[in-house]
Amino acid sequence: MTHRAPLAINVDRLVARINSLAELERKDDGSCTRLALTDADRRGRDQIVQWMQEAGLTVRIDQIGNITGSRAGRSVVRPVMTGSHIDTVGNGGRYDGIYGVIAGLEVLQALRDADQVTERPLAVTVFTNEEGVRFQPDMMGSLVYSGGLSLEEALNAKGTDGARVGDELRRIGYAGTERCGEPVPHAFIELHIEQGPILDMEKGLLGAVENLQGISWQEVTVRGVSNHAGTTPMQLRHDAGYCAAKIGVFVRELAKRMGVPQVGTVGSVRLTPNLINVIPNQAVVSVDLRNTDDTLLTAAEREFTAFLEDLAQEEGVTIQTRGLVRTAPVIFDSKVLQAIEAVAAELRLPIRRMTSGAGHDAQMMARICPTAMIFVPSVEGISHNPREFTQAVHLQKGADALLHTMLRLAAT
Amino acid sequence: MTHRAPLAINVDRLVARINSLAELERKDDGSCTRLALTDADRRGRDQIVQWMQEAGLTVRIDQIGNITGSRAGRSVVRPVMTGSHIDTVGNGGRYDGIYGVIAGLEVLQALRDADQVTERPLAVTVFTNEEGVRFQPDMMGSLVYSGGLSLEEALNAKGTDGARVGDELRRIGYAGTERCGEPVPHAFIELHIEQGPILDMEKGLLGAVENLQGISWQEVTVRGVSNHAGTTPMQLRHDAGYCAAKIGVFVRELAKRMGVPQVGTVGSVRLTPNLINVIPNQAVVSVDLRNTDDTLLTAAEREFTAFLEDLAQEEGVTIQTRGLVRTAPVIFDSKVLQAIEAVAAELRLPIRRMTSGAGHDAQMMARICPTAMIFVPSVEGISHNPREFTQAVHLQKGADALLHTMLRLAAT
Repeated sequence: MTHRAPLAINVDRLVARINSLAELERKDDGSCTRLALTDADRRGRDQIVQWMQEAGLTVRIDQIGNITGSRAGRSVVRPVMTGSHIDTVGNGGRYDGIYGVIAGLEVLQALRDADQVTERPLAVTVFTNEEGVRFQPDMMGSLVYSGGLSLEEALNAKGTDGARVGDELRRIGYAGTERCGEPVPHAFIELHIEQGPILDMEKGLLGAVENLQGISWQEVTVRGVSNHAGTTPMQLRHDAGYCAAKIGVFVRELAKRMGVPQVGTVGSVRLTPNLINVIPNQAVVSVDLRNTDDTLLTAAEREFTAFLEDLAQEEGVTIQTRGLVRTAPVIFDSKVLQAIEAVAAELRLPIRRMTSGAGHDAQMMARICPTAMIFVPSVEGISHNPREFTQAVHLQKGADALLHTMLRLAAT
Repeated sequence: MTHRAPLAINVDRLVARINSLAELERKDDGSCTRLALTDADRRGRDQIVQWMQEAGLTVRIDQIGNITGSRAGRSVVRPVMTGSHIDTVGNGGRYDGIYGVIAGLEVLQALRDADQVTERPLAVTVFTNEEGVRFQPDMMGSLVYSGGLSLEEALNAKGTDGARVGDELRRIGYAGTERCGEPVPHAFIELHIEQGPILDMEKGLLGAVENLQGISWQEVTVRGVSNHAGTTPMQLRHDAGYCAAKIGVFVRELAKRMGVPQVGTVGSVRLTPNLINVIPNQAVVSVDLRNTDDTLLTAAEREFTAFLEDLAQEEGVTIQTRGLVRTAPVIFDSKVLQAIEAVAAELRLPIRRMTSGAGHDAQMMARICPTAMIFVPSVEGISHNPREFTQAVHLQKGADALLHTMLRLAAT
């Protein structure tokens, strides 16, 4: 018999690391800004690499700057990988992405502390530029990893400040030499805060994320005729503001009629001239449609387009649409999901299947290996905000679930 | 037999005066800004007074700065009066108000040129601060003239720039000593551009304005809950943007259902945070309801309030309303209208009865004497804009109608 520590997540270390990473960039309002490939990103990366080394991991940096820390298994085969990102939006919180990275690191370190070796290797990856605030596209590191974007295109991407990804990688010391896309994982599991209200409302369940919504973003521009609100008879109006209102009501009714999982939102409306006594001559309206079924999402888009044609005709206005984003839904792997659920049952952690409404690195990794995600509750669903918060007990449960799911998947 | 010129409007002089008044303030974009009681207003007033004197009129300036030019009749009785205003909105046009003043002046000068004397005296008045841009309330000069606002209150009104009406009147030399409200006219007729599209669309008819809409302006504030557009199920939303859309559609449907003369407009919508992927937590919506029948307008307001209560309940939001403006409709005098129509028939000027959707000094004068208005077409209904335009032929027809209506009313 060897004297080894029992295998367990060290929640104090986990929380302390999340907080100490946040402290590096913390502003007075509690927010944290770590835009991709800035000096702040370098400070965060340096800290993660240091912790990886302390945990005895082999650190590998690829040509797009993804950082993978690996722990060997008994066999030299494809690893079970976890990972996420450490870049943030402007004035963001301390959990989005970062929790998944630090919990993955904790899983590997807990195994080391307990002196346990798995059959397969394990790995944790920090993906470059998930948020896409400074450089487009978002999820860049995982997209290159999974072969969805060429390395060359990614390195040449220009930032909002004019900087080039390749130059910034070199500048901060993370232009690695390893090939992108290796190792190809046996399975990939991303642990993340929900960034939505469902798990918090259901009193702290975990989520087994079975799919990720397809997203359709359009900008609709209505051009009518400005006129006096008092003197223009109703039947002579070409009211862009009225059309914006009709769009808002239609999108709601469409989503309700189609039912779960279709959602639809008009989040932004800009009227011109936007005065109380002038009929608007222009309305610019955003339309956000999401569904986990691509056929249904396409049908929703088609219905919306037909509605706009009728509306333009009826009101005597012109309506133009501009596609801003269109991503296909992602369906995660059922075997990985079953592993997550089996582990949750063993650990007596209540869990429910759910859909991710936001994009994650896991959706890119799903292109090359069996993938799924685990969500933990976000208090009030708040994210991308200094008020983003998840209780330590939920951070621990999520990390426990990740640990044992990785163990299960790495056993064979 | 005396040698006198035939009685006729001098359209060249009329147009030249409108243009020369505009030239005093004309900007590069063709716009004209003559806010009440500014130096620009003084320059305009000085010019009008000079023209009044050239036309042999007796000039009277009252304590709120209204300028009346009078021409004696054969009898010393109440005069037939016309008038309007020369102040403008910021970056306004050259016809709104000004046309009525200069056409009134032209009527009196044409009588002098033709050496004709009427039974009753005639008068033309320039009312102070009709637009209400710098000082509230609007239609201030005619409101004080008709006893609807005390002189003291008006003089103490503070402008957007902190200036006081009384001080500014003194500064520009128009703090008159004559009592407000005198003379009480035998009848009042205001000639004005329509500022709406109806007469222009009907190929240059004149308008005999029989009433003026009552106006109800409300600001509606909806407070919901901001949340992620992807992760928030439809049935858990408290979407202030959706409520704004429902309001826009309801206002249109209410006006259509009630039918002419009810109109309703949502001209301004401001959503917070107004982002494509965030459910708005606040919407501030303007609602403009107008009707010529006060009972119907009140009924419309009541229906709208009931609708808001249901909407707040259904969507789980709070809705507050703030009344911004509420004026009762004005019904003009049938005898003055009949005189206008009889004159139009004699002159073979096609004319139709209509409603004014905007406020005018005549609505205040209607409190103290038989009153009506004559409208001329505005090209495309454009007003409060440098593109405000009325063809000379229509300016002439309107002035002809005014001349002969004043003659008819001044005959007895």
